[in-house]
Amino acid sequence: MKIVTTIDELRRERRALKGRVAFVPTMGFLHEGHRELMRRGREAADHLVVSIFVNPRQFEPGADLDAYPRDPEGDRAVCEAEGCELLYMPDRDEMYPRGYTTVVAVGELGENLCGSRRPGHFEGVTTVVAKLFHQVSPDVAVFGQKDRQQLAIVRRMVRDLDFPIEIVGVPTVREPDGLALSSRNRYLTDDERARAVWLSRGLVAAHQAYSAGERGSEALVEVAREVVAGAGGDIDYVECVDPDTLRPFEETAGPAAVMALAVRIGSARLIDNLRLDEPLPEELRR
Amino acid sequence: MKIVTTIDELRRERRALKGRVAFVPTMGFLHEGHRELMRRGREAADHLVVSIFVNPRQFEPGADLDAYPRDPEGDRAVCEAEGCELLYMPDRDEMYPRGYTTVVAVGELGENLCGSRRPGHFEGVTTVVAKLFHQVSPDVAVFGQKDRQQLAIVRRMVRDLDFPIEIVGVPTVREPDGLALSSRNRYLTDDERARAVWLSRGLVAAHQAYSAGERGSEALVEVAREVVAGAGGDIDYVECVDPDTLRPFEETAGPAAVMALAVRIGSARLIDNLRLDEPLPEELRR
Repeated sequence: MKIVTTIDELRRERRALKGRVAFVPTMGFLHEGHRELMRRGREAADHLVVSIFVNPRQFEPGADLDAYPRDPEGDRAVCEAEGCELLYMPDRDEMYPRGYTTVVAVGELGENLCGSRRPGHFEGVTTVVAKLFHQVSPDVAVFGQKDRQQLAIVRRMVRDLDFPIEIVGVPTVREPDGLALSSRNRYLTDDERARAVWLSRGLVAAHQAYSAGERGSEALVEVAREVVAGAGGDIDYVECVDPDTLRPFEETAGPAAVMALAVRIGSARLIDNLRLDEPLPEELRR
Repeated sequence: MKIVTTIDELRRERRALKGRVAFVPTMGFLHEGHRELMRRGREAADHLVVSIFVNPRQFEPGADLDAYPRDPEGDRAVCEAEGCELLYMPDRDEMYPRGYTTVVAVGELGENLCGSRRPGHFEGVTTVVAKLFHQVSPDVAVFGQKDRQQLAIVRRMVRDLDFPIEIVGVPTVREPDGLALSSRNRYLTDDERARAVWLSRGLVAAHQAYSAGERGSEALVEVAREVVAGAGGDIDYVECVDPDTLRPFEETAGPAAVMALAVRIGSARLIDNLRLDEPLPEELRR
């Protein structure tokens, strides 16, 4: 595995890769969820490129940028083990040199759910992803469904701006008790970790209600919210949204629907989501 | 010369071009200025791709979108004569399908000069240029210095978002009397056309003053403005700006300086500009 830190080195090494290239952009502190993205990337292409960059532009002022967990050595070992051939670890000056002003924004899709709670977050995401796409020139890029809004926004950006890149979305990887894997789970104390199980249980409860025929969006949200309250955190949002537009259903949930939530538990802000109209994933059936 | 109208056809034909590809994006109604861009493109690469698309998103509401001159047959002949191998003529639905929301914006650089008079114009430019770049995947793209702010903005976007594309700027082509070539010159009546000569003469007057040592930015603007007034149009702006930032000099013009102007004559809004610190171009020495 080659490790590069500058755009020039990256481009040189990238040109040497013949065939299809898959790309997994990450913020590091890699866990099993990232490993799954890498495996899907390798399946979809001949070569795998991974980037690790904690993008300051997608953290709001006062958010957990400085506290965001880092483990460059462990990350290198994970990438190597997952068959990554080229690992790109730029620093901030390489990504945002002086005089930088350009922004890529997808509009409405970035304003719902997390967008309304984290102003500027998704503009930071689309801008850095556009840059990484131009730097890496992948044929395929892989994103997790856990960050469903991010995935939808990247798909919209790629479609609207005609990036010649295929986007692959990968199902959320979960702990045995259902908690979605996240680098931010590391912020949880043991007690908070135990209570965090109620997030995915809230989604499952809504899934059961939807499967039983409930279509009232308020009723579905209420079912989830009551269970999620068991986590004892601050609920940022629990919403039943259209999977394409991410717009909340006003009265009746559609034939395709997502329950999405964000909850603060201790110092961690955790997100999760579930398609209500698709079969419950294996890990959530216990 | 192949002519294509869809992104799929374009990509198929583009893949068949081996070696370096130059790209000249245009809004059609091609004149000698565009021909010069194409010649420079051919010099810089092995193949030449030209696009013709009158981009609705860079016209403000109520601007001359519907009146913008078109001549598809003449344009095809020009492209063919200039050695274009692939001519791309998408329609609006191909460029902006339903649900389109993404915007690319360069911030401050798009807010001076024409940006402050044409709200949304440069966001329309950067967005369509980003799309065309992704559709065509050129190695080199060629833009005219006549649209100096556009050129600066495209360079900024390319640098900030790391597009793997070299941008070439080409000196303005002028009529024998100095008027910068523009598709919009066609809006001028004979009388207006005769008076339009005072635009470039104003720039030359400022150039003479600068060469004689004048560095007061207000004084330089005043020299230009007095001559430009001879055109009898509505002066939109005459400004002495930094060539990199396009910011007006507050008191003293720098060692590098541009005089830029926009004037409405009849139904045409004409722009022109001149580097004051570089030798006067041949065509303006008469």
